[in-house]
Amino acid sequence: ATTTSAYQKLLTIGTKIIGVGRNYAAHAKELGNAVPKEPVLFLKPTTSYLENGGKIQVPHPLESLHHEVELAVVIGQVARDVPEASAMNYVGGYALALDMTAREIQATAKAAGLPWTIAKGQDTFTPISSVLPCSVVPDPHDLELWLKVDGETRQKGSTKDMIFKIPYLISHISSIMTLLEGDVILTGTPQGVGPVRVGQKIDAGITGLLDVHFEVERRQAANYS
Amino acid sequence: ATTTSAYQKLLTIGTKIIGVGRNYAAHAKELGNAVPKEPVLFLKPTTSYLENGGKIQVPHPLESLHHEVELAVVIGQVARDVPEASAMNYVGGYALALDMTAREIQATAKAAGLPWTIAKGQDTFTPISSVLPCSVVPDPHDLELWLKVDGETRQKGSTKDMIFKIPYLISHISSIMTLLEGDVILTGTPQGVGPVRVGQKIDAGITGLLDVHFEVERRQAANYS
Ligand SMILES: [Mg+2]
Ligand SMILES: [Mg+2]
Ligand SMILES: [Mg+2]
Repeated sequence: ATTTSAYQKLLTIGTKIIGVGRNYAAHAKELGNAVPKEPVLFLKPTTSYLENGGKIQVPHPLESLHHEVELAVVIGQVARDVPEASAMNYVGGYALALDMTAREIQATAKAAGLPWTIAKGQDTFTPISSVLPCSVVPDPHDLELWLKVDGETRQKGSTKDMIFKIPYLISHISSIMTLLEGDVILTGTPQGVGPVRVGQKIDAGITGLLDVHFEVERRQAANYS
Repeated sequence: ATTTSAYQKLLTIGTKIIGVGRNYAAHAKELGNAVPKEPVLFLKPTTSYLENGGKIQVPHPLESLHHEVELAVVIGQVARDVPEASAMNYVGGYALALDMTAREIQATAKAAGLPWTIAKGQDTFTPISSVLPCSVVPDPHDLELWLKVDGETRQKGSTKDMIFKIPYLISHISSIMTLLEGDVILTGTPQGVGPVRVGQKIDAGITGLLDVHFEVERRQAANYS
């Protein structure tokens, strides 16, 4: 039997986070983007994880980051060229994650045809919950995700509105790169993204299953330059 | 004393590869790009590593990939907000790497403001040599990198032409994300990039220090769809 601590360990052994962009039609629209024909994929480093209760750091000279609440799929075993029909066998658990994004930096990068690494890859930019075993998530495509800033609801959406569903994502991504135990797929955010400023507080959750809490602070600037 | 196998182990414990784009002026120019004011950064997953002697796989429907020969800096200890003056203390070793790139996919992504993950992150897209201890690399900014396709020289350049030098890169990247032991920085490619096709053979090296050899084959298409 897999113990609770074995689920938590998954995130510490993983080596990559694969983000999926524009996977909810209403969110793609709110940022003025077309609904994609195939998943938009990007990478975040595992050094961007932040445990529940930690502080999200806004780097100088930014005043805010955008919040994106997302269902995280945690891979349970090595997956390469996995067919959709068996893809769910490779899920080791689920978590709630925030794909924090420096939207101004991302906008500049997009306009210049450059990667989103600096906009999305900084330390504390992937706050994440504990890992839920699959047994407590009977249908990952029927979960309500919500996010509040200072008590005000900003995002509330259902994973049933994902454009590309989890079996397709696992199959597709595993045809591009091998997924390892503990790797995480961020499945995209429903509509309602927006800025959260230094000094504000984020609560987020999967209705009925878990919730997480993060404060937003200014990152102490490196003073070596 | 650190043993040879300890150096090799670095790549297996690392969790990320940070690529630097356009770090040689002549290469930026050959692709029609401006010389950047700050480093262009992107991530590759460690699942893209390929050991010396392995086969680089070209995925369907591509006929070729571009070769980019690069000096890889292997991080030796955790680095966060490291000043340039002490940055070299965080180097655990050096290697020669190929930053294989599906140029057509990258061009499409750039035009659409999308990440380079699929263009650069696939399995076998980061062929890499064994890790050289710092002691055998007295000056990493005075190394000749070369690459041949089927015996014909395609790239030959000196690391002295890097726009952003290694201490700056470590300092800068560590101000964005924590670098962990075994993480790798790909420091960019000198000019001469170009396609290598299925059936061709790549030899590459650091003059006087090491060389590597890779064959290019067609990736067997996943036949689940
Ligand atoms: Mg997102
Ligand atoms: Mg690891
Ligand atoms: Mg490169």
